[in-house]
Amino acid sequence: MKLMRIGAAGAETPVVLAEDGRTYALSAVTEEIDGAFLASGGVERVRAALADGALPVMEAEGLRVGAPVARPGKVVCVGLNYRDHAEETGTAVPERPVVFMKDPSTVVGPYDRVLIPRGSVKTDWEVELAVVIGREARYLASPAEAAAHIAGYAISNDVSEREFQLEYSAQWDLGKSCETFNPLGPWLVTQDEIAEPQALGLRLAVNGEVRQDGDTKNMIFDVAHLVWYLSQYMVLRPGDVINTGTPAGVALGLPGTPYLREGDTVELFIDGLGAQRQTFVNA
Amino acid sequence: MKLMRIGAAGAETPVVLAEDGRTYALSAVTEEIDGAFLASGGVERVRAALADGALPVMEAEGLRVGAPVARPGKVVCVGLNYRDHAEETGTAVPERPVVFMKDPSTVVGPYDRVLIPRGSVKTDWEVELAVVIGREARYLASPAEAAAHIAGYAISNDVSEREFQLEYSAQWDLGKSCETFNPLGPWLVTQDEIAEPQALGLRLAVNGEVRQDGDTKNMIFDVAHLVWYLSQYMVLRPGDVINTGTPAGVALGLPGTPYLREGDTVELFIDGLGAQRQTFVNA
Repeated sequence: MKLMRIGAAGAETPVVLAEDGRTYALSAVTEEIDGAFLASGGVERVRAALADGALPVMEAEGLRVGAPVARPGKVVCVGLNYRDHAEETGTAVPERPVVFMKDPSTVVGPYDRVLIPRGSVKTDWEVELAVVIGREARYLASPAEAAAHIAGYAISNDVSEREFQLEYSAQWDLGKSCETFNPLGPWLVTQDEIAEPQALGLRLAVNGEVRQDGDTKNMIFDVAHLVWYLSQYMVLRPGDVINTGTPAGVALGLPGTPYLREGDTVELFIDGLGAQRQTFVNA
Repeated sequence: MKLMRIGAAGAETPVVLAEDGRTYALSAVTEEIDGAFLASGGVERVRAALADGALPVMEAEGLRVGAPVARPGKVVCVGLNYRDHAEETGTAVPERPVVFMKDPSTVVGPYDRVLIPRGSVKTDWEVELAVVIGREARYLASPAEAAAHIAGYAISNDVSEREFQLEYSAQWDLGKSCETFNPLGPWLVTQDEIAEPQALGLRLAVNGEVRQDGDTKNMIFDVAHLVWYLSQYMVLRPGDVINTGTPAGVALGLPGTPYLREGDTVELFIDGLGAQRQTFVNA
């Protein structure tokens, strides 16, 4: 299933995009797609309601699409998790996942405008496979246990300001946490629809020119490993988001470092997860 | 005023500790002390209700004390912000604030047990002045504007696992985000009670032995500068917490690096902000 949140920012309504191509209102099942919904078997309730024909069609055409998860408790990011991206940034392939965080309030809808921070000259893109946690994960015994804790997947643009991230201190979070810096969605695609998360093509284009063209098979640490690893050091809670790293092709690593400027449009695609499109404007 | 949240974890009730030494229930004013309460003039409503004698006394004796702010949207931390602490860790005094983040779900009550993570041998303490945001701060024009965006202050123990923080990757968040790693409180002391946030003694003792004995006057970047600085790069929202750094005396910098072991008790004090006490136990 493809869960969505539709409507004005802060006033989204949950819907499900079903296999018949129609969107159905979820207001009879839940008020929100959030950690509490995911933790309480919400996905199964939606599945049952859909099967029963109990949900009313809701016309979503023309309405804004919000992030598919409301108020994630945290956004955990993994850096340098594709061999080609580690190479383009001139860093060694890490022996352990490189873990940092974004302000979770940076999460916005997949077609929302993204703000280039005031004073920024190095705003950059990163297409990433986002993992949404569905069940609390704490000290998992092995990567094999990870799947039971994953609600599903979404596209994430881990927007980054490289000067703030890399030049102002050795800690990256400052350049990852600017307002609107995490477009997410359009869908939370439930795990059952993604048979193999390590075989997804992911692409990003800027003003129509393809800049990133990778495959999740090239992750250094795969999704199951990341969920297991993180659970040894922090509690992953329902609704939390993990950005699993980006393949090569960011502005930082390209000839001429073509960072984003006002009016630039970025499109992102991941197999099975849909597409995003953002226009960048000055804050 | 001193705002508190009293009761079992996840079921706290808001109260105010008044100048008469009594605690008064706030249930008639608000259900929660959180970002929405702070953003909507909640502090002034509590002040008015107290002045009117409209609040019922609530006996808090014997009840658990929770963190004074529910569900902070983010916990932003500033590293190496005291000259003596930068020296003890062998690092240069930074030219800009070093900014990183903790999982906001690490926030627990000031007397709660703290869990030493499985496999940890380097769990460490850090007494810090926490700033709680009361009004959204975005691109403040100068540090002079910061005060209008601060709700108040609290004690924070920025518990840190040094192996996870410093040896597993160059990014610190992993060693800052373990379960229960941010005792906060006991009180949110409203800003009007803290005439000079840069003249507060702060102390920490382990098993009765004083390990940190600092003063906020020795911050490299003061509170107003930090709020202004952060607002240039991220949106500070009501209920967000800023941990403003720790003075010298952490285990990492002491002879013999006396990291915490099961059964150790840590006490923290900041002038005007009360005291914390935690016992550390193995997760």
